[in-house]
Amino acid sequence: MRGLMMDTQLMISSLLRYAADYHGDREIVSRMIDGSIHRTNYRETHKRAQRLAHALERLGVKSGDRVATIAWNNHRHFETYFAVPGIGAVCHTINPRLFGEQIVYIANHAEDQFLFLDLTFVPLVESIAQELSTVKGYLLMCGADEMPETSLENVMCYEDLLAAESDHYDWPVFDENTASSLCYTSGTTGNPKGVLYSHRSTVLHTLCVMGADTIAIANRDTLLAIVPMFHANCWGTPYACAACGAKIVYPGPFMDGDKLHELIEAEGVTVALGVPTVWLGLINYMQANDKRIDTIERTVIGGTAIPASMLRTLEDDYGVQVFHAWGMTETSPLGTTGRLKAGEDALDTDTQTALKLKQGRGIYGVEMKIVDDDGKELPKDGVASGELMIRGPWIAKGYLKEEGGAVLDADGWFPTGDISTLDPEGRMQITDRAKDVIKSGGEWISSIELENTAMGHPGVAEAAVIGLPHPKWDERPLLIAVRSEGSEVTGEELTDFLARKVAKWWLPDDVVFADELPHTPTGKVLKTRLREIYANYTLPTARDQSAATG
Amino acid sequence: MRGLMMDTQLMISSLLRYAADYHGDREIVSRMIDGSIHRTNYRETHKRAQRLAHALERLGVKSGDRVATIAWNNHRHFETYFAVPGIGAVCHTINPRLFGEQIVYIANHAEDQFLFLDLTFVPLVESIAQELSTVKGYLLMCGADEMPETSLENVMCYEDLLAAESDHYDWPVFDENTASSLCYTSGTTGNPKGVLYSHRSTVLHTLCVMGADTIAIANRDTLLAIVPMFHANCWGTPYACAACGAKIVYPGPFMDGDKLHELIEAEGVTVALGVPTVWLGLINYMQANDKRIDTIERTVIGGTAIPASMLRTLEDDYGVQVFHAWGMTETSPLGTTGRLKAGEDALDTDTQTALKLKQGRGIYGVEMKIVDDDGKELPKDGVASGELMIRGPWIAKGYLKEEGGAVLDADGWFPTGDISTLDPEGRMQITDRAKDVIKSGGEWISSIELENTAMGHPGVAEAAVIGLPHPKWDERPLLIAVRSEGSEVTGEELTDFLARKVAKWWLPDDVVFADELPHTPTGKVLKTRLREIYANYTLPTARDQSAATG
Repeated sequence: MRGLMMDTQLMISSLLRYAADYHGDREIVSRMIDGSIHRTNYRETHKRAQRLAHALERLGVKSGDRVATIAWNNHRHFETYFAVPGIGAVCHTINPRLFGEQIVYIANHAEDQFLFLDLTFVPLVESIAQELSTVKGYLLMCGADEMPETSLENVMCYEDLLAAESDHYDWPVFDENTASSLCYTSGTTGNPKGVLYSHRSTVLHTLCVMGADTIAIANRDTLLAIVPMFHANCWGTPYACAACGAKIVYPGPFMDGDKLHELIEAEGVTVALGVPTVWLGLINYMQANDKRIDTIERTVIGGTAIPASMLRTLEDDYGVQVFHAWGMTETSPLGTTGRLKAGEDALDTDTQTALKLKQGRGIYGVEMKIVDDDGKELPKDGVASGELMIRGPWIAKGYLKEEGGAVLDADGWFPTGDISTLDPEGRMQITDRAKDVIKSGGEWISSIELENTAMGHPGVAEAAVIGLPHPKWDERPLLIAVRSEGSEVTGEELTDFLARKVAKWWLPDDVVFADELPHTPTGKVLKTRLREIYANYTLPTARDQSAATG
Repeated sequence: MRGLMMDTQLMISSLLRYAADYHGDREIVSRMIDGSIHRTNYRETHKRAQRLAHALERLGVKSGDRVATIAWNNHRHFETYFAVPGIGAVCHTINPRLFGEQIVYIANHAEDQFLFLDLTFVPLVESIAQELSTVKGYLLMCGADEMPETSLENVMCYEDLLAAESDHYDWPVFDENTASSLCYTSGTTGNPKGVLYSHRSTVLHTLCVMGADTIAIANRDTLLAIVPMFHANCWGTPYACAACGAKIVYPGPFMDGDKLHELIEAEGVTVALGVPTVWLGLINYMQANDKRIDTIERTVIGGTAIPASMLRTLEDDYGVQVFHAWGMTETSPLGTTGRLKAGEDALDTDTQTALKLKQGRGIYGVEMKIVDDDGKELPKDGVASGELMIRGPWIAKGYLKEEGGAVLDADGWFPTGDISTLDPEGRMQITDRAKDVIKSGGEWISSIELENTAMGHPGVAEAAVIGLPHPKWDERPLLIAVRSEGSEVTGEELTDFLARKVAKWWLPDDVVFADELPHTPTGKVLKTRLREIYANYTLPTARDQSAATG
């Protein structure tokens, strides 16, 4: 027997239409690449998204086509978040910090048809354009007067495209399981893999993000999105802000403390989301200049754990409530949130801090369990640790073009690669890193890829990369190499070699040489032993940082 | 192109499993029919729901079967909310305040297979049992020692049934569009009509109810459900409380001020939901006994509008934030919420009050428009009024067994039967029920506004306005008032009072006083009954008119 409720398809376009209809005056404020402040609102943005929808169709973009962006956080990027899926196409947000080669791989793998880009990235895209085998044209996110000289072919001006179209477009309604957006994750092994979101998963995730126990985005909020829009849907915030008419503040590329502080004060930001690294600069600026951020009520920290001292500074000195949230590109990304539970606000500060430093507690919609090496479920006792497995309507079931093969276990659980405990109160704590990954400023660096690249040098017999603590970036890579017989390769030479193959921010902060590496009985490098050996090693960059802040 | 996210079916059973797994210790506190307090928690409740699932299957209940409840708000009723849909059957909550023959009609129409009932309702059900043509057995919601003598056949004891079963049950996963629960709405004309919810509509509505801009139910909340569980899923609160692990307080049949006050204080209630009537008794009790309810942060008022004076008393004297919420059985029921928008908390109190007295503002998930008699959309200008039409994933598309025929218009909108305005800020205000509107000389008079204004007079406890035939004006209003205790207010005084607040041509042509007004089971004034009572009443102006023209 079927229920008799409306068969409404959950459509991304309905989020922006809601914002325009019920919160048309609420603002979207962006700092543009020239440093100027741009102001618009949901009413205008909905009109512009409708113009963009027409423009995309005029360009021949069809349902299912991938359209990529390489852009900062700003109002135009926000428009693509709605217009591209709105016509049934797929919005592919590309991380501009990737190495050119990786971008080429990703864009070709996704078969991107068009590429939106902020002017900052014109040189980057020029350098790889010849290798982009499917891109038919480039849409420069600027006005006609800002159009640069460029070697790119089939270049179009975003504002000209919009100006030529009607601001009324009837958003089509189609199957809610249709793909809506695409984001690649650079896993520990193999090629980057594409996570393909749907309208359904996006709208369900949006409802979750508005929940009072999660991020609780509400109409009265002014949200500062520090998290980039090329990271897992900007944590779902463009959609959630539209769905309640929250004001949005986009900092563009300007993440220095003074610029962020200026925006927070001028716009009355109430909630900020991002990795802890950015807070470091902001706190330093405020301390040095005796500034405050009294409008901010809460901050949601993700990507990596916040240091306890920073948490206490934010809460005690600046009155900003701090919550962890844990998630992955594959989880849309909300997986857990670190809000205190009923009664816990009566605990002493140290106990509260300890609770907050865990990754967070389970939320409705994401099932969690931990399993041992045989896939057997382990107790949720806060002691047993095993691989974290998750399941839910906004969790990936596989990757684009079946990259990585079958991902889920027999019961449909997604293996996160993180080793964690689950306590009886429902809190999850990651005890061990996903095996070989280094988290630098919230971004993943694949140690395996670095190792493989280093071993491509003729002077290197074997190489291993581990993450070492870093005050600013949380972790940075250390390369441990064994020279091949007769080789006299130096660390500097190795770094230069790597610099031609990987993104600059992936480069190891130091290179050390060893006579041999410890191995498991099956011949794999024993990372746990390496971490013990180098436990007291301080990266030169970390030393510099200490000196600077000391 | 389909997205690659998990095809997770939205299942009601997952809500209770979540509560047990992540908030197992959170309590469900019920006042039982003997006045005693019963305490349990989500961990135990999930176990008992699993026992009940086994028991239902042992009774032969199959997917799609309807299983009815006639019960108060308590933990056992809560268990049926999950166990019955959990096995794929349909939980049909019956309003015990209906007349016996209406219950017979509804139960037979629904083809209820089994009937759960609290002991209070044994005499009621005994009196109609012979006419219940499909009910195979009666499950008395009590322990073995409480089982009464009864003429009912096939009577079973709820606690005995549970005790005989295992507390582990694997909740099946099936199509989320499967029917989950059933609630009849008694229109003013025609037969009662069954609204058939689905697992999908219920889970989506649950996510909505947890939203920071709607009811914002959160883990730290203790919710007092004054709204009965036989009303539109208890406004979705059993599901939403489970989905965040909020503590629940069920008052059973005891709605007097002193009993409610005792529960609120003892359990630390933070949010209460219900019709305004109940607040009247509570406020009277608190005023007479110098009591307070300081734990309550907010109350959500639905079913009917709260009088301005009561709103101000709650906010000013007791520090309780008041929100309207509007909805219907057909809307799951959340349609709008009355939370202030960004910046409105800076308005002066009178302006805020006026905003709060509207039915509420649109929420994401429920589309609204108003149309004229020809179905043409009217402007959202706060002035034009027309029938409110709504659309969304938790709105009914029709009634069980096609009662009432095709309900939706050609574009899939549901006609609410309410006449309303929509303002540019997205707020909806009901100006009248389509059938309650008084048409005087071709102009509409809002009976609701007249009633609310009359109730602003201190000498009036309750007021209703109906239209009576008039030879000149077609219809003219009659005000029927109930004096407040000790009041000796006259009709003339009331008319003078109204004359200062409403247009002269809106003034009732006569005022009569009654000892009490007839009410629907949901506490609304029964206009149909009033029209019957005053069917032969002639307005003095109509008499004059007759005399003049006779």
